Amino acid sequence: MQLKNATYHIQDISMEALAEKYGTPLFVYNAFTIDRQINRLQNAFDGFPHRINYAAKSLTNIAVLKLMCSYGLGLDVVSVNELQMGLDAGFDADDILFTSNSVSFEEIKEAIARGVKVNIDSLSLLETFGKEYGGSQPCSIRLKLDPLVGEHEASTEWHNKSKFGIHYSRLDDIKALIDTYNLDIVGLHVHNSSSFLDIPVYVKAAKRMFDIARSFEGLDFIDFGGGITVPFHPEDETIDVNKLGKALTTEVHSFYDDYGSRPEIWFEPGRFLVSECGYLLCSVTVLKGDRDLPYAGTDTGFNHLLRPKLYGAYHDICNISNPEGELQNYHITGNMCETDFLGRDRPVARIREGDILCIKNAGAYGACMASNYNSRLRPAEVMIREGKVQLIRERETYEDLVRNQLDVSW
Amino acid sequence: MQLKNATYHIQDISMEALAEKYGTPLFVYNAFTIDRQINRLQNAFDGFPHRINYAAKSLTNIAVLKLMCSYGLGLDVVSVNELQMGLDAGFDADDILFTSNSVSFEEIKEAIARGVKVNIDSLSLLETFGKEYGGSQPCSIRLKLDPLVGEHEASTEWHNKSKFGIHYSRLDDIKALIDTYNLDIVGLHVHNSSSFLDIPVYVKAAKRMFDIARSFEGLDFIDFGGGITVPFHPEDETIDVNKLGKALTTEVHSFYDDYGSRPEIWFEPGRFLVSECGYLLCSVTVLKGDRDLPYAGTDTGFNHLLRPKLYGAYHDICNISNPEGELQNYHITGNMCETDFLGRDRPVARIREGDILCIKNAGAYGACMASNYNSRLRPAEVMIREGKVQLIRERETYEDLVRNQLDVSW
Repeated sequence: MQLKNATYHIQDISMEALAEKYGTPLFVYNAFTIDRQINRLQNAFDGFPHRINYAAKSLTNIAVLKLMCSYGLGLDVVSVNELQMGLDAGFDADDILFTSNSVSFEEIKEAIARGVKVNIDSLSLLETFGKEYGGSQPCSIRLKLDPLVGEHEASTEWHNKSKFGIHYSRLDDIKALIDTYNLDIVGLHVHNSSSFLDIPVYVKAAKRMFDIARSFEGLDFIDFGGGITVPFHPEDETIDVNKLGKALTTEVHSFYDDYGSRPEIWFEPGRFLVSECGYLLCSVTVLKGDRDLPYAGTDTGFNHLLRPKLYGAYHDICNISNPEGELQNYHITGNMCETDFLGRDRPVARIREGDILCIKNAGAYGACMASNYNSRLRPAEVMIREGKVQLIRERETYEDLVRNQLDVSW
Repeated sequence: MQLKNATYHIQDISMEALAEKYGTPLFVYNAFTIDRQINRLQNAFDGFPHRINYAAKSLTNIAVLKLMCSYGLGLDVVSVNELQMGLDAGFDADDILFTSNSVSFEEIKEAIARGVKVNIDSLSLLETFGKEYGGSQPCSIRLKLDPLVGEHEASTEWHNKSKFGIHYSRLDDIKALIDTYNLDIVGLHVHNSSSFLDIPVYVKAAKRMFDIARSFEGLDFIDFGGGITVPFHPEDETIDVNKLGKALTTEVHSFYDDYGSRPEIWFEPGRFLVSECGYLLCSVTVLKGDRDLPYAGTDTGFNHLLRPKLYGAYHDICNISNPEGELQNYHITGNMCETDFLGRDRPVARIREGDILCIKNAGAYGACMASNYNSRLRPAEVMIREGKVQLIRERETYEDLVRNQLDVSW
């Protein structure tokens, strides 16, 4: 989003005009940003055979999936519904990896019936899978590794007790199940943190994965999962993907030298590809100034963007109706009948009632986590690509809210 | 829910049979509990003229609203969509109070057009309302009071800086607007905490409200809002509503003695009426035992019941498939591709894969906050009343997920 002639634009489209045309709240996505992020990753990893699988859960819309498909990406899905959207968007089943946790075996079978590869994340599931399919159906195995633990104190508990994946110390149990059921293991996958900042830690995890991979023959891929994040706050640290790519290139080739074949290296970015592409436009419905700081109330809230309330996430906010106004500090809130700060004590260009605010980094884990709390409608979504605006999801209606409710006489 | 013949029942309906018939995850509501809670409140407050307005946001389903309507309750709504559901459920517009925050003035006008009373929560809105309607349209005023502040240290910041209501210290500004626009103020409303435990604090707030009310003539009602909670954890403190009723009776009559008329006292319970009536049934899809405590993964998660993840809320969990099994400690998790504990380190009767677990207190702020995160479908909801089971919301389908998505060619 750029300020041109005192108006915020994306690809020459005025954000204010979008708010006017489609109403607020409105999710706006900039396809150019997705394109840029894909290129950044592809360039960073061009020293070894790799594949980028878009994590569909981060922004789940068939139009977005179609765009990812048009770039030649694969797809990482966590439910059969995501899988079906991937197929509807044009992905080949071969290019979709189904990585679930805590799903029923019926869902695993359904995924296999639709032709995709499944990634098995528990010993219990591996055994059930073996009994059902034996070696007739290839699969990959999702591992969790400890090297990350010591390095990130805060996430120790999370990693150590994570529900995701099979702990790598259980390799003997995995091997025993492979032998018993003659399983065809085509890939290994690691559950990484959702926010990686440290290249040496990433490389340490990669090395451990390669060590483990050496005890599996003829793997097709080693999947490093997601976890490459983007800046939200101006002072946020981020990982230099080019440096990461260089460090990984060394490790990958060192692994290839003695492995015998060259499994592809897979990545599953979600946030990295779509976070920065997204903007949530909302209208200021009220200014309240009876306490220390003025409150700007808006027509959105944690029903549409849960991250600030759920994680205390920082999302930058600007006033697109008054781009050159004097900065003043505000609490920006939603309209839920609950505390729902979108930003606390934020410097924003002077806000008037009716102004359109823009909440940044709303592409990933925005619309896909939206609810109808307070019986409010989920926003429309538009994508801007090659200078054109395309509505990719219509705003909900009252009929959507009550569609599945049944008329009952008490 | 009662254990009879080693099977959990609600009104002689087996919970396991419900899970079998409707599938999981499933919200089950017990109308008897709602009936009991309404009676508890009515009895507690029978010493003075009062009205119970059900807070629709806590469990928003037309069938539930119809039930509340059949008990003669009024309705507290926070959006025009909730208002419309109330009308669809059979409430008279007269029995609905629209208490919004940060909504557009268009929405206020829409609420008035549909015939309901509005509760004004900011000076800015009061002025806009006055300019539009003057004295031709009655309204009430939502205040925030400080007496609660000092008493509950933890919520000081929240109350003091709350976005809800007009601070009572601004009474002169309110009066000036009333004079300027000849406003017809028929009620006063206080925004209480969402969780009241302390009768003296409640009474202190009531006294301050009555003091304020003395400067308004001929009020029809004084609305004490919500905030009466229920126990979630066995050791949770709760408020004794009978004691509260007695304490309020004294204050109400003391106010009536010198006020001149007898405004009704209104309450807006949500959680109190529906929290305990609700149960979320889910299936155990996997047991993972490779770390210190076994994990039981289920086919639900924070997409369906956000409270544990959002607030760290405690919801009791039992195993209805093995009611007399030996207690063992488990982490109970959802199936989101994220950390989503439903309960940590919980003693539950021995869990086997395929067992049905029951998460209690899932009536309030359960289904209404559910999302489609991970492209999972929102659960069905059933109500048990007079020994009969009634489906009140159908489980979503894939078509619901993609309904508003638009086909785009890139």
